[in-house]
Amino acid sequence: MKHCSSCGSLVIEKIPDGDNRHRWVCDQCNTVHYQNPRIVVGCVPELDGKVLLCRRSIEPRYGYWTVPAGFMELGETMEQGAARETLEEACAEVRIGHLFASVDVVAAGQVHLFFTASLLGDFGVGNESLETALFSEQEIPWAEIAFRSGTFALEKFFEDAGANNGVHMHQVIWKGRQ
Amino acid sequence: MKHCSSCGSLVIEKIPDGDNRHRWVCDQCNTVHYQNPRIVVGCVPELDGKVLLCRRSIEPRYGYWTVPAGFMELGETMEQGAARETLEEACAEVRIGHLFASVDVVAAGQVHLFFTASLLGDFGVGNESLETALFSEQEIPWAEIAFRSGTFALEKFFEDAGANNGVHMHQVIWKGRQ
Repeated sequence: MKHCSSCGSLVIEKIPDGDNRHRWVCDQCNTVHYQNPRIVVGCVPELDGKVLLCRRSIEPRYGYWTVPAGFMELGETMEQGAARETLEEACAEVRIGHLFASVDVVAAGQVHLFFTASLLGDFGVGNESLETALFSEQEIPWAEIAFRSGTFALEKFFEDAGANNGVHMHQVIWKGRQ
Repeated sequence: MKHCSSCGSLVIEKIPDGDNRHRWVCDQCNTVHYQNPRIVVGCVPELDGKVLLCRRSIEPRYGYWTVPAGFMELGETMEQGAARETLEEACAEVRIGHLFASVDVVAAGQVHLFFTASLLGDFGVGNESLETALFSEQEIPWAEIAFRSGTFALEKFFEDAGANNGVHMHQVIWKGRQ
């Protein structure tokens, strides 16, 4: 951040009055520009014991497989976001179940939150996917999963075997890969 | 948003290539300025069946009671954020337990996430609080709780009675009050 998004002046990094950490601040119009983590919402759409995965047609991790997931948008709930991402990436309608996995990706400033889901009908291939397919636990291409948060979610999904055991918490530490 | 935070030019609202919704975009440097919901993390610190609440010394809801909670910061996990807020607002150390409540506040662009917690020692009064105190379920000033997400979290906390029943989901619709 270089400029104030309100007035266009150059911002400086300082601790605002009453705060305890450095922020981008505009000394011209006194706006404090807070920056906070973003939420990635996803789900594991299930049908007859198999789960729906998407092979990515976009970077990062082009060509790798992922559960349907993406940045939560303003104007929607977490469940709505997870369902929207599934519609966009796999042209599939789902009924969202319960929240079962949470992954902090601190280096990226992200929290990834995963729901169980029931696949309600057919599925297809969205713009951000090369292909989509249903996999049993044994069929999942574990070495080709795009993100470690997705691997964690899939592992816990099958461990839970349909039960709601609360939210499995995890932290991904970046060491050269996501 | 009026100006590009990268180059200071005026931004316009348009649908970027490959996207499907309006964003603030800079046509000078081609930066897309995404805006996403923010996470509020909180916890219910418990000691001997009583929970620690803080009476707010800041707006919004000055003078009303709240569970320790606040905006998650970059550089921390959700649990670290919930513990930090408790330290700041109630000068109290906690051991974070499990995630048990999630509240979408769509009109505010916020998701509020609440953990159980064990109060580990003494507590005090932080800068953002007028006073702090322990309350049994019967003693809680239900009519003076600052935010409906906090009321929901407290209700579900006592309903769960220590068990991990997964995450209770809720949505707050704004109709003149938070």
